[in-house]
Amino acid sequence: MNQGLDGVVAAETSLSMVDGERGELIIAGYPVEELAPNATFEEAVSLLGVSPAGDRTLPPIALEVLRASARRGDDPMDALRAAAGVLLSDQLFAAFPTIVAAFWRLLHHQEPIAPRADLRHAANYLYMLTGEAPSDERVRALETYLNTVVDHGLNASTFTARVITSTGSDLVSAIVGAVGALKGPLHGGAPGPALDMVFEIGKPERAESILRKKIESGERLMGFGHRVYKVRDPRADVLAAAAERLLRGDRLYDLAKTVEKTAIRLLEEYKPGRRLQTNVEFYTALLLHGIGLETPLFTPTFAISRVAGWIAHCLEQRRANRIIRPQSVYVGPRGLHWAA
Amino acid sequence: MNQGLDGVVAAETSLSMVDGERGELIIAGYPVEELAPNATFEEAVSLLGVSPAGDRTLPPIALEVLRASARRGDDPMDALRAAAGVLLSDQLFAAFPTIVAAFWRLLHHQEPIAPRADLRHAANYLYMLTGEAPSDERVRALETYLNTVVDHGLNASTFTARVITSTGSDLVSAIVGAVGALKGPLHGGAPGPALDMVFEIGKPERAESILRKKIESGERLMGFGHRVYKVRDPRADVLAAAAERLLRGDRLYDLAKTVEKTAIRLLEEYKPGRRLQTNVEFYTALLLHGIGLETPLFTPTFAISRVAGWIAHCLEQRRANRIIRPQSVYVGPRGLHWAA
Repeated sequence: MNQGLDGVVAAETSLSMVDGERGELIIAGYPVEELAPNATFEEAVSLLGVSPAGDRTLPPIALEVLRASARRGDDPMDALRAAAGVLLSDQLFAAFPTIVAAFWRLLHHQEPIAPRADLRHAANYLYMLTGEAPSDERVRALETYLNTVVDHGLNASTFTARVITSTGSDLVSAIVGAVGALKGPLHGGAPGPALDMVFEIGKPERAESILRKKIESGERLMGFGHRVYKVRDPRADVLAAAAERLLRGDRLYDLAKTVEKTAIRLLEEYKPGRRLQTNVEFYTALLLHGIGLETPLFTPTFAISRVAGWIAHCLEQRRANRIIRPQSVYVGPRGLHWAA
Repeated sequence: MNQGLDGVVAAETSLSMVDGERGELIIAGYPVEELAPNATFEEAVSLLGVSPAGDRTLPPIALEVLRASARRGDDPMDALRAAAGVLLSDQLFAAFPTIVAAFWRLLHHQEPIAPRADLRHAANYLYMLTGEAPSDERVRALETYLNTVVDHGLNASTFTARVITSTGSDLVSAIVGAVGALKGPLHGGAPGPALDMVFEIGKPERAESILRKKIESGERLMGFGHRVYKVRDPRADVLAAAAERLLRGDRLYDLAKTVEKTAIRLLEEYKPGRRLQTNVEFYTALLLHGIGLETPLFTPTFAISRVAGWIAHCLEQRRANRIIRPQSVYVGPRGLHWAA
């Protein structure tokens, strides 16, 4: 049995290449280090064969769903999943930021702000959260983030979208399933805790003692280590550079750098040879926080980017489809008889 | 590459065993032939470790979603997916029939009928479609169908639910993803066409000439052949017997039997050795039609049963979890450079 399907090749893709041994990520032919900090998000999405156009305005029923979710105090990913489920397919990509921003405001007892067509995708998302047009620096930082995480091989949410598509189902079904998978803390849900640890440490001089205590008590350090990358996650470099550009001189930034250096040194000391490196979640948290996004928005913002990758994978799956249907091994009882 | 994951074992399960070579299906230890015609659906669901209890009444927002879907003329599976997405997890199983029946009535400009707590799950579903309490024979036939299809190894929708659960996500996310997968015509969407073929043939004496024409023109006969079963699908036997009990002497039933016999004979003549047998879809269509369900309700009725299997698989996945993340092979361009 191979429960995690580790090493099983389930698709050919021309969208992204993840080389975990070499720490390399290629998106539509371009090294992530070149593409992410320089392209607009619209350009990156177009490279994947997905149209960045589409109606950003939510249909009334999507707003009703968000109002009900906000009244119930739902997780933003649940609200995103539910609202995405009432969209039509040609609106999926365009409407994700509107859903996330509208829900965030409703959750805080504020009315949603209508999208602006004159702003780029990333800028409009930040605008809809507060009603203020964001600075070029914040937009550039967010676009770098969105480009960096737009696609990443057959991760669990992308694989979910492809499995659903493989049955001949529609794009909305596939994307809604993928949102549900991304919600899981083992997949998209870990950037929050990485930042929480930095906040908990609070001052650079406390980093070593607190991190030692965590490692010695067997606690996992959030933000370090990745199942695929055995060397440094290339996305972490891109996001670290973007964070430095945006946050240089900022107290939290200096603290995070100290935490990172200390954690890497201590992990090598306690777990030599494991090569645990800073992963994308650590700098995602720092960068998104620096852009002004609160922690519960981290995973939905990830979804605002990754939905482009999901759509691209669905289109790719359709072009060379076979229904995805692995096997299970039965380990239950046998030979029982049900009396008529 | 193994795009369909054929033969790859991705889970251990104690819920059901599918033996495609021997034509055997065991559900929670019991042969489907014994369990399906004799147990209530509540009993079958309980065997899978799923509680058949729960609130059958829809929250107002679910009804709003269904009204919007009906106004738009959505596919019933899209409406089911969207409405399931606004439920809480403890209501999922209980509310599926209410969703399907309410949507069906709204689609036909009728107000939904409130569920009755004094009727069993299957009887209440039929009641909510028309407002009339169904006969014992119809209820028994529907329960036999629901029991027969409640679980079936790692099919694409069940696998979808397990992939989503493997990220640590919640039950609603997993079930919504599974509904989306079941919607696909390669998975849950084929019972309709099997019946359409019987209607098209219309009279027993036309079966041979029409079927010959279809086979000779390369058309696939709906209702015959299955990816897993190389001998007769055991579920087809159970449903055939249930159809005979319910429909004996009925003109459509006799016609369907003639179509089946003729199709099997001709398939052996044209494609010797392929062992193409009647599959579950053929008798699903006949039985559900006999119960009084219209064709667009076939796949949603499948979902009303299979949701129990999905929930059981999610609980099982949680007990021994590893995130499901296969690999992709990159076949796209390399070495491109993005100018800053």
